[in-house]
Amino acid sequence: MEKTTRICGATPDRIEVRGKDLVGELMGQLSFTEMFLLQLLGREASRLQMSIVDAVLVTIMEHGLVPSVLASRLTLLGAPESYQGAVAAGLLGVGDRFAGTASECAVLLDRIAGAPADQREALAVRIVEEHRREKRPLPGFGHPTHKGGDPRVEKLIAIAEAAGAPGDFIAALRLLEASMARVVGKVVPANVSSAIAAVLREAELPAEVMRGVVLVARCAGLVGHLHEETTRPIAGEMWKLVEREFPYEWT
Amino acid sequence: MEKTTRICGATPDRIEVRGKDLVGELMGQLSFTEMFLLQLLGREASRLQMSIVDAVLVTIMEHGLVPSVLASRLTLLGAPESYQGAVAAGLLGVGDRFAGTASECAVLLDRIAGAPADQREALAVRIVEEHRREKRPLPGFGHPTHKGGDPRVEKLIAIAEAAGAPGDFIAALRLLEASMARVVGKVVPANVSSAIAAVLREAELPAEVMRGVVLVARCAGLVGHLHEETTRPIAGEMWKLVEREFPYEWT
Amino acid sequence: MEKTTRICGATPDRIEVRGKDLVGELMGQLSFTEMFLLQLLGREASRLQMSIVDAVLVTIMEHGLVPSVLASRLTLLGAPESYQGAVAAGLLGVGDRFAGTASECAVLLDRIAGAPADQREALAVRIVEEHRREKRPLPGFGHPTHKGGDPRVEKLIAIAEAAGAPGDFIAALRLLEASMARVVGKVVPANVSSAIAAVLREAELPAEVMRGVVLVARCAGLVGHLHEETTRPIAGEMWKLVEREFPYEWT
Amino acid sequence: MEKTTRICGATPDRIEVRGKDLVGELMGQLSFTEMFLLQLLGREASRLQMSIVDAVLVTIMEHGLVPSVLASRLTLLGAPESYQGAVAAGLLGVGDRFAGTASECAVLLDRIAGAPADQREALAVRIVEEHRREKRPLPGFGHPTHKGGDPRVEKLIAIAEAAGAPGDFIAALRLLEASMARVVGKVVPANVSSAIAAVLREAELPAEVMRGVVLVARCAGLVGHLHEETTRPIAGEMWKLVEREFPYEWT
Repeated sequence: MEKTTRICGATPDRIEVRGKDLVGELMGQLSFTEMFLLQLLGREASRLQMSIVDAVLVTIMEHGLVPSVLASRLTLLGAPESYQGAVAAGLLGVGDRFAGTASECAVLLDRIAGAPADQREALAVRIVEEHRREKRPLPGFGHPTHKGGDPRVEKLIAIAEAAGAPGDFIAALRLLEASMARVVGKVVPANVSSAIAAVLREAELPAEVMRGVVLVARCAGLVGHLHEETTRPIAGEMWKLVEREFPYEWT
Repeated sequence: MEKTTRICGATPDRIEVRGKDLVGELMGQLSFTEMFLLQLLGREASRLQMSIVDAVLVTIMEHGLVPSVLASRLTLLGAPESYQGAVAAGLLGVGDRFAGTASECAVLLDRIAGAPADQREALAVRIVEEHRREKRPLPGFGHPTHKGGDPRVEKLIAIAEAAGAPGDFIAALRLLEASMARVVGKVVPANVSSAIAAVLREAELPAEVMRGVVLVARCAGLVGHLHEETTRPIAGEMWKLVEREFPYEWT
Repeated sequence: MEKTTRICGATPDRIEVRGKDLVGELMGQLSFTEMFLLQLLGREASRLQMSIVDAVLVTIMEHGLVPSVLASRLTLLGAPESYQGAVAAGLLGVGDRFAGTASECAVLLDRIAGAPADQREALAVRIVEEHRREKRPLPGFGHPTHKGGDPRVEKLIAIAEAAGAPGDFIAALRLLEASMARVVGKVVPANVSSAIAAVLREAELPAEVMRGVVLVARCAGLVGHLHEETTRPIAGEMWKLVEREFPYEWT
Repeated sequence: MEKTTRICGATPDRIEVRGKDLVGELMGQLSFTEMFLLQLLGREASRLQMSIVDAVLVTIMEHGLVPSVLASRLTLLGAPESYQGAVAAGLLGVGDRFAGTASECAVLLDRIAGAPADQREALAVRIVEEHRREKRPLPGFGHPTHKGGDPRVEKLIAIAEAAGAPGDFIAALRLLEASMARVVGKVVPANVSSAIAAVLREAELPAEVMRGVVLVARCAGLVGHLHEETTRPIAGEMWKLVEREFPYEWT
């Protein structure tokens, strides 16, 4: 059983994070994203990791008035004394339905990229067929709004490639996409979740930290919405609208 | 009553944030911190804002096994299926006691920096005296651990000055510090909360968004702790320790 | 510094709560409300306390599609894997704006009921005048919907009186109501929050536990809404409605 | 798509819950548990349901300084302004690990009780064998503390039987217990989770609402701990203890 932490220790004179002196080695020298990666992974981030993680965080910070944003703004309406409560309420909706697919897809990409090169294509087809047979959606494919292909997907991949990504996980994503087209008989485009999975794996982030990356980006997004809610409130009107449009009925 | 949001809108072809095309103008071009400031304030961040906000986020991301980290790790122990629940539990403890002083101090700095130059010193003394009279602590002064002065304070100020901060809020902080020494009769050093308040005001962030900045940094810190908890768990041992050391007693 | 808890201890053979054997003395013998009061106050509840607390819990369990219910249902939409996350998100909106007035009003009732009998009327007038002068609403008076008087108020008082409440706090509430009419010049009826404050004080529950009573009732209410959301979902439609009615606008 | 709620509607004159007038038919006439069941299930609770649900709520309200209680108390330490935040943080730890087994076990009990009477025994054995083969624990069996059998189990069953439970689900639990003994070769006693599952199924509560019942009981338990934390604080000492016993280590 562990009895220590390897992240941070503070004495009156020194705060040390992952072996570095916070004041002397980190403050003023690292960007937020570099510090986040150091804290998360326990080692200095590479240039490639930084570019990819920054691009991913920028990509998913905002998507408008999604359910988690509504929950956050409605919570502030009832509890204006607790900003952190409103942020927490918003993050609680960043769950499996919208935010879980990146890590699920990453597990599939790991299987493909981990196979011998000449077996990857067949494996991708097999994975797609399995999901079809068990009537499970392939995680990270299809989108209710962006039916013709999500514009963020190719952009993320281009950013990763320009930053020098080795390419095995992007190639695995392409194999899944091609297998989908072959098995299903029509193009079902990769969505932003699988693209995030592919580029974060290129950056050597394991599947199990992907939800954490999403939460950090969404936390920043929620803070912006709460600031708007404070200065141009809409939650009260939302409430009235919902009460009017979803009446009580008992028969 | 407002009936719109000015943050983000998505159509099948285009996601727009604060008037910018996410794919064409933001992804791959902005760092996390630039995107966060655009989303929060509705305009492009200046070089000065970026440097200061990055420094602040790096400064407060980690402080070891503080109560909010313990709450987060203990929550994951009971609900391993909900990563977002563990992050939310941790953020709920980022409340007035530890995270509220920055914005409270910012309000005082605003009063001083907003006064005519020749009246600021007298105003700072008056503020300190008021707090003494009403037996309220001056927000952002004194620290249980770093009694001789928190090493992060001067570093944050130096970073802000090197980045070209105009200096009015830093000067206001110095006036408060000098007034404390004069009124109390001994040095009570500014702590990291008042330094954060001063440098974020130099970056033109209003007092009411400071809690949000703290929450973003702490969210990233919690993600690191949850990753450690997943790979080197300690929450189970903490529980046993607390049960043993805080027994039930009824008489 | 305390180093013990006085609530509950468990050994392999015996679970003891507040000095009672859970299996032998509590299970099958206490109702939920009796157990809650034992756990909260550390002593057996009286008949009067039970009647009043049951009535209060019944009164505030449900109020339809209020903001905290919306937040809870929207959270389940995004995180169906975490029922507790959806409940927690709902409770986070049970804050000062809608749930804080009972304890604020209880503090005023305590002041009036604690004064010598012949000074209570004058004190009630003074309290109302103070609030008017400082332009603060008197906590527990007025209601946006039930303008002619909330039907729950008289019912709660009648239940408390029928159960044998001594009546000092109810009398204090009547004095505040009469003072409001006199000072403001028209009837501003007591709302359900001040009635809850009065009857819970009659039951000897201190002001600082009233929020807890509200949270327990609302927790039960949220569980009902989440069960409806699971079987007859509306959160997805709410989301679409809000997105349509609150469009993004940038100029 | 649903566009109504069937739980509660309020007009200025009347608040209606599940077809009943709150003021005229519910307040002062229903206990908390009756109201909770009406709100949850949409019909009046039977005497049997009331007895069983009260017994279950009493049983699981308290279990001492468990992780969710620690999280709740530590959260109040950092955010004393937000009582609801501390309750929410505590509930977030009421997750699959400790609170999920009741509903998982209920699904198994449903399968057994739903089979023709002469096939139930064989089915119970098959279920136990399946779990053994797949190396999954049988939900609701075994306990780290109460190794010789949890005293709450027989008590819950006795309460349900005394209240007139038909007995099919209790019988199914007995069959699982006997199958475990036969397959494993030693007695692995049913724990409180499976007993809760059995008696709540006797009360006709479906598996999917069991988590909700647990959350209501735990919410009440947390309120008691937060009241103790306010009056006899220990969270600060817990923090110091954990920091001392789990030091930072970097090598």
